[in-house]
Amino acid sequence: MKKTGLIQLYTGDGKGKTTAAIGLAIRASGQGKKVAFLQFLKSGDFNSGEEKVLKKLKNIRFIKFNEQSPVFNKKLNLKYLKNKSEKNIEQAIKIINSGKYDIVILDEITHHFKFKTIKINEFFNKIKKRPDCVEIVITGRWILKELINKADLVTEMKNIKHPFDKGIFARKGIEY
Amino acid sequence: MKKTGLIQLYTGDGKGKTTAAIGLAIRASGQGKKVAFLQFLKSGDFNSGEEKVLKKLKNIRFIKFNEQSPVFNKKLNLKYLKNKSEKNIEQAIKIINSGKYDIVILDEITHHFKFKTIKINEFFNKIKKRPDCVEIVITGRWILKELINKADLVTEMKNIKHPFDKGIFARKGIEY
Repeated sequence: MKKTGLIQLYTGDGKGKTTAAIGLAIRASGQGKKVAFLQFLKSGDFNSGEEKVLKKLKNIRFIKFNEQSPVFNKKLNLKYLKNKSEKNIEQAIKIINSGKYDIVILDEITHHFKFKTIKINEFFNKIKKRPDCVEIVITGRWILKELINKADLVTEMKNIKHPFDKGIFARKGIEY
Repeated sequence: MKKTGLIQLYTGDGKGKTTAAIGLAIRASGQGKKVAFLQFLKSGDFNSGEEKVLKKLKNIRFIKFNEQSPVFNKKLNLKYLKNKSEKNIEQAIKIINSGKYDIVILDEITHHFKFKTIKINEFFNKIKKRPDCVEIVITGRWILKELINKADLVTEMKNIKHPFDKGIFARKGIEY
C-alpha cells in the first residue's frame, strides 16, 4: 500500500544536499513536527554549524554517526565499515519504524548504499512496516537508479560551477 | 578586484533551493556568523516553518517582503510590482553593502531579475562596493545565464521526480 509520507531524495554532485536537508528539518520543526536528523559517515570530532543549532531545537533529535567514508579514506576496509556501522543502520531503521518522528533525515546514507554496507532493497524491506505518515529524506552524491525508483521526490543537485575547482576549500560557517 | 566572499546561486526547477538557503543560514549562524535572510515575493500572511524558527535565532535577521509574484498572479501589472518592490530591493542592497552581515540570502530574488523589476547588471553595479567578505546566496527557479556568469558557485536543482506531478500539493511542515 502507498504511504502518505513520501521518500525524498537529494542527490548529485552539486552543493546543497545536506543544507537542503537542514532546511527541511528547520521548516518541519517550525510547524511543530518531530524530526530525527541522522548524519552518517561523519568521522572526526569537529562540530559543524548545523550540529550546534539543530541539537538545541526542541523538536529535533540530532545523531551523528562517527564512521569513516571509503571516499575519504581509500584504505578503509569495507568489511570493517560494515561491522562498525551495522548498529547505526539498525538504529536508523528503529527510529523510522518507531512512529515517534514525522520526518527522518538520513544524511549521506547513500555512502552505505553505494559501498553496499547495506543493500538498498534490504534497507527498504526493513522499513516496510513503518507508520504511514513518516516522511523520509535521503541525501548523498551518487545517483543510484535503484534508489530513484524507491523515491517519490527526487532532485538532482547538479554542479554547474564550483569554487573548489578554482582551489577554494571548505570554509567554516559556509561548507560546515 | 575579486571578492573573498562568494556569490552562490541555487537555481532550476527542482525542490531544495529555499531549503538549502535555510540550511546555509543555520550552518552559518551555528558558527557565529551574522546572517540576513531576505525572502522576496512572499505575499499573504501565512507563516512558513522557516520563518518561525529563523526569526528566533539570534544571529539571523529575517525579512519577508510582502510582494506578489507574476508567476502566481498572471494579472499582476509589472509596473505596479516594480514600484512596490523598489524600496525592498534598495533595502537588500543597503544590507549587503552595510558590512553588518557575513552572509546575505536573497531568497527568490530571481523573480525580480526574470521580470526585470531590476536588471541583473544594475543590481550588481549597486553592490560593487560591498565589503570584501560578504557571502551572497541567491535562489530562484529560472536559469538565467547572466546570473550564472556573475556567480562563483552554481548548483542547478533539477526536478527528476516530483509528487506534484501526481497531484500531491504543498504540505505544511514539508513544503512551507
